[in-house]
Formats: sequence, C-alpha cells, structure tokens
Amino acid sequence: MEAQSVPILFQIFVMFTAAKLLGVVGERYGVPTVISEIFAGILIGPYALKLVAVEEWTQALAELGAIVLLFSVGLEQKLTDLKKVGRTALLVAVLGVAVPFLQGYVLMVLLERSQTEAIFLGAAMVATSVGITARVLQDMGVLRTVVATVILGAAVIDDILGMIVLAIVSGLSEGEGYMRIVIVAALAVGFTLFIILVGRGAVRRVTPQVQRFAASNPAFALAMIICLGLSVAAAKIRIAAIIGAFLAGLVFSEEELTAGVKEKIGSLYEFLVPFFFVTMGMQMDVRVLADPKILLLAVAVSVLAILGKLVGCGLGAYGLGLRSAVQVGVGMVPRGEVGIIVAAIGLGLAAISDDLYAVVIFMTLVTTLVAPPALKYLFSTTPSVPVPSSPANPPSDLL
Amino acid sequence: MEAQSVPILFQIFVMFTAAKLLGVVGERYGVPTVISEIFAGILIGPYALKLVAVEEWTQALAELGAIVLLFSVGLEQKLTDLKKVGRTALLVAVLGVAVPFLQGYVLMVLLERSQTEAIFLGAAMVATSVGITARVLQDMGVLRTVVATVILGAAVIDDILGMIVLAIVSGLSEGEGYMRIVIVAALAVGFTLFIILVGRGAVRRVTPQVQRFAASNPAFALAMIICLGLSVAAAKIRIAAIIGAFLAGLVFSEEELTAGVKEKIGSLYEFLVPFFFVTMGMQMDVRVLADPKILLLAVAVSVLAILGKLVGCGLGAYGLGLRSAVQVGVGMVPRGEVGIIVAAIGLGLAAISDDLYAVVIFMTLVTTLVAPPALKYLFSTTPSVPVPSSPANPPSDLL
Repeated sequence: MEAQSVPILFQIFVMFTAAKLLGVVGERYGVPTVISEIFAGILIGPYALKLVAVEEWTQALAELGAIVLLFSVGLEQKLTDLKKVGRTALLVAVLGVAVPFLQGYVLMVLLERSQTEAIFLGAAMVATSVGITARVLQDMGVLRTVVATVILGAAVIDDILGMIVLAIVSGLSEGEGYMRIVIVAALAVGFTLFIILVGRGAVRRVTPQVQRFAASNPAFALAMIICLGLSVAAAKIRIAAIIGAFLAGLVFSEEELTAGVKEKIGSLYEFLVPFFFVTMGMQMDVRVLADPKILLLAVAVSVLAILGKLVGCGLGAYGLGLRSAVQVGVGMVPRGEVGIIVAAIGLGLAAISDDLYAVVIFMTLVTTLVAPPALKYLFSTTPSVPVPSSPANPPSDLL
Repeated sequence: MEAQSVPILFQIFVMFTAAKLLGVVGERYGVPTVISEIFAGILIGPYALKLVAVEEWTQALAELGAIVLLFSVGLEQKLTDLKKVGRTALLVAVLGVAVPFLQGYVLMVLLERSQTEAIFLGAAMVATSVGITARVLQDMGVLRTVVATVILGAAVIDDILGMIVLAIVSGLSEGEGYMRIVIVAALAVGFTLFIILVGRGAVRRVTPQVQRFAASNPAFALAMIICLGLSVAAAKIRIAAIIGAFLAGLVFSEEELTAGVKEKIGSLYEFLVPFFFVTMGMQMDVRVLADPKILLLAVAVSVLAILGKLVGCGLGAYGLGLRSAVQVGVGMVPRGEVGIIVAAIGLGLAAISDDLYAVVIFMTLVTTLVAPPALKYLFSTTPSVPVPSSPANPPSDLL
C-alpha cells in the first residue's frame, strides 16, 4: 500500500495545505474562503505549478467534498423561516432564478453555441450562494432586518429551485429534445417531493429505533448513510448525486438529532470540502482567458450575472422600497459553490467546453468578490428596518 | 465528474454502510468495532459478495483512514502517565515486544520462509491494541487499579517500540542485509526522537502565532497539515507514512489546543477509519484458510500470539503477584489495528504472501476476540488493588 501511494499522499498534503494557507491569508483580507481555495487549486494545478494532477482518486475525494458541502447546505435550510416573509421571498427567488437563466440561455443561443451549453450556462447563473452574504450581514449585525430575512428566505427557495434546475440539466446528458427535458424534470421534481414528504417522516420514525438498538450514538453514521444513499439514488436515476445529498440535508434539518450531527458534519466539512474547491480550481485552464474573445465573454457573463440578480431580485423586492430592493438584489449576487457545481457537472458530462468552464469559474469568482464590499457600503449608508414580527430583537440590531 | 464516478460513490456507500451496520450489530453482542468492520470488508469484498473492488481510490481513502487512526492513537498517549508505574510498565512493554517478535521470527525461520516474512510476522505479533482492553477495564470500573495503570503505561511504551519496529520493517523493502537494517533503524529512531524533542517545542511556539494571524480558529487545519506533512516526510525517508501521523499525534498530545482538535479528529475518525478496516478485510482471501496447512499455521500463530504476551508481559509484571501478572498479560493480548497495519504494509510491499496476510488477519481477529471475555472473567473473580499514589480514587473503584 505504502509504496505506490506516496505520491497520492503528497498530493493530498499539497492540496490541503495550499487550501488552508491561502484560506487563512485570504480571510485576513476579507476574501471568501471559496475564492481562496479555488485560487489554491489554480496555483498548484496542471496549468500553473503542476504539483498535482486530476486523477480518479482526486475526483472521488472532490465528490465526497461536494456531497458533504451540499448536505451541510441542506441542513442549514430552515423551512419554517420562510413563513415570515414568504410572499416577497418567493417573488425574489422566482424572478432571481428566471432572469439570470434566460440571460445565460439567450446569450449562448445568440453566440450560436449548442442547446446544452445554453442550458448549462443558464443553470450556472441561477444559483445564489447565500453563505457569503449571510456572513457579511452577520458581521454587520443586521441579520434580523427585513432585508436580511427576505434574502435568507429567498435563498432557501432559490436553492431548491436551483437544485431542480440542476437536476434537470444534469439529466440532459443523454441527449436533448423536449420529451427528455419533461421526463427528467418530472423525475427531479418527483424525487424531491418524495424525499421531503416521505423522507422526513421515515427518518423521524426510524432514528429512535436505531438509537435504542445501538449502544453508542449512531446518529452521525445514520445521517452519513442516508446522505450517501440518497446521493447514489439520485445518481442512479441520472440526476446529480449532490441533489441527493442536499435532500438528505433537508430531511435532517430541524430534527432534534441534528445537534451533535451538525458539529460532526462541520468537522468533515473542514477537511473534505477544500478538496472540492481545490479540484475545481485545478480544472480551470486560466490560459484560455488570454484569448481576448473568451475574456470578453467572461466579462460579459459576469456583468450579466450581476445585473440579472440585481434586476430580477430587485423587482421581486420592489414592494420594500428602492433602497431595500437594491440591498436584496446585491445580497443575491454571489454565485459561490453552486455555480461551480453546475460547471463541474457540465465539464464532467462533456456538456460544456473548457473555455465555457473557465468563463463560469471566472463569473463565480467575480460575483462572489464583488458582493461583500457592495453590501457593506449599502448597509453602512442606509438605516435598516428590523423584522416587525420579531419582538425578541435586541435594540442593538438596529443600525 | 458524475458520469464516471457513480460506481465509486456506490462503493463508498456500500463500504460505509456495511461497516456501520455490522458495527452496530456487533457492538450489541460485545464484538469490538475493528472486528465487525474487517468482517464487513471480507463480506462485501472481491472474495465473497464482490460488491466492491480494491482500486487506487480505495487505497487512498484507506490510507487517509489509517493516518487519522494513528494520529488519534498518538493524541491519546499521555507521556506523563508513564512516570507513575514507569519501571514495571517498561519491563512489561519490553518483554511483551521481545517475546512475540522472537516467536514470530523463529516460527517463520523454522518453516523455511524468507527473512523478510520472518521479520514481518514478528513485527505483526509485537503490537498491542490497548483500546479494546481500556474499553473493557473502563466498562468494569477498574481503570484506576494498579493493573490497569501498568497495562496502559506499558501500552504507550509498547506503541512507541512497535512503531520503531514497524518503521524498521517498512524500510526493509529495498532488500535485506544487516547494514540496511542498521541504517533504517537509525533513521527511524532519529526521526522519532527529532519529532518528539524538536517538534513539540516548535508546535508550542508556532501555534499561538498562527492563531493570532487567523480570524477563525485554524488549530484543526494546522494539526491536519502537520499530520499529513509528517506522514509525507516519513514516507519520503522510506519509513511507513503512518509513523509520521503517530508522531504528529504525540506532538499535539497534552497541548492546550487539542481540546477542540480532538473532537474534530474524532468526527473524521468516525467517517474515515471504517474505510481502512473495510479495505483490510476486502484484501483478505478467506479461501486460503480452506487449505489445512494454512489453517493450522493460522491457529498456531494465534496461540503463540496469546502465549507470547501472556508470558512476556506476565514475566514483566511478576513483581505484582501471579494473579495481577496474568491480568496484565491478558490485557496486552489484543493486536487490533496495529497488527493489521503491519500486515497491510507487508502486503503492499509484496514482502508477505497472500496466505501469510490471511494468517495475520486471522491472528488479529482471534487475539482481539479472546481478550475481552477473559479480562472480564479475571477481573470479576479477583479483588483489584487501586493505585496507591492516587489519593483521588473514589472507593467505588474497588471491586
């Protein structure tokens, strides 16, 4: 075992160390971790320092990272939170999904790219990575304002819509045609509904029995088994494996048993998720951006991605007034990990070309880097309105 | 990514689920987890149900598991505990290493096997897996007795001696000859002393600076970087990678920063270590035991392994009286994970044959299964003497 695996171990060491090193340095200068880790991957990858290569085991480790990542995203969804700002959040989410998707789709069609590439770029432009926004809002102490609650609520719906879009898109590898889209969409929606409606009840009934049977607490093992199992099931019906992981997270969110489980998943997250982002960076051929045409496309897609969320989500939140609508729009701009996941699936299915992969990664980096300073500026110049229905708000939450 | 990796994901799911399922069921009937997980591997592996195969990514995952396992073992070593029962423990450990090593070595020489196989079998018979004994002693509430303290103290020294033997053995792949053994031994001892003497100081000095620099707590990332880095370093000087992981654990044991780190490593352990044991089980060709000659050898090696520790460690603890000496001897019998690691390295280096690998796994299973009931019997029929130097012992510790 030792003899052959020395290089693997060395690469694991280099990937993890580069991710954490750049992460710590980036954090000090306000750069989101996801950005630092992708940069780490670009740096050590086959198009720069050539310290590591993308092999089968790298893919396996990266996929485990993506599964843990999406499981955590699912775990964080608080479906009950939605009720507070439900209508506005729903409008923000739906328009924030529709506008960017159409932008990406139409742009690709205008550029005479394939139908599959058009759908993939649309899908990559859809997702909101609200983690970065939530972090900024939390740091500024404005998490309990109406704007923040709308953003977080819309992000939940956005994530679920984005996952359905992703499920449809990832099922399209077999070929195009409207019939195929309809079948995959039905499968994706059916799978999602089945897991949410039947899965939660099943987990609630099975878990206490497992815990009574086992001497030690098996909640973490059970959660990971369900997470891996649903990932396999999703892959079997030819939608993305990570959809299963996300749904497993939804199944376990708001369960009493998640207390200890969440912490343990958090530790797995710290170790495994960097391998996903580093591998994604490793696959980005930065040299394609030296071609002015590709660079122009990357800039155009990035600008569209920012405008799409600003206009779509802003329109949805217009009822809150112009300033709040702009804040909501900016808060929904970062694409973060979800855009990268769509791109990764597209690349893996050979549904998108290397240059479009680089364009999507570029767009993700730009949207994720642009949002935090803009949000800080918008919230520091505007007084924020707290959520009226939350009497427990301490006055310090008002800026 | 998705398209090719579906089978990998399925295998990961099967390996993890089988390990945890058999683990929970085994636990209920008092079977140590390591045994259940090896059985899970045998069951789903290429010699039985053929659900999974040993591939490069399996090896990578198993090696990560072994590294996390040995890092945890290192973290648990309390060097200060040794002082209490130092002399007896040292005698128990040294004799408990020397007698089984000679047994294994001489047996192989008598059977006209190669020098390398003789050394590997000796090394595999050396190690004590005290975790299983500690668990039994804890369950019976006799952890604070003289016998228990001697066992735990001897196990620490045993682990360090065992690691040095393993380091020497794993460096022997290049060829035999006494000069080579001397060089590898010097390297192994030098590396160990360097890490223990210089490493602890360096970690103590560097960690606070890293923590001052980083916004979030990077202790876990730092620990994993050092763990992976020392594993790579150990592999580079051609001693087993896991020696580096073990030494990294030693470096971090008894540090203030380990509180949060230990819990996080514990979560990684729960997820990754099963892949090591399952993979070890998958590599065991149980069919070789159908050959009466091999089965006889397996039984003989198992009996010798039990007698070796009983006689060696018992002699070392003879000053405590016959009954206590027998208790110490039985407590040191389980080989657990360390014997398996020696066998895995031997198999990986092609230094031992498939049949000897099966013999070592068999011996590990037998010693690990035999010890707990024997210990329970011995401790339930004998009054135990608490450690005299511990005034804090509650009277309930006396049986």
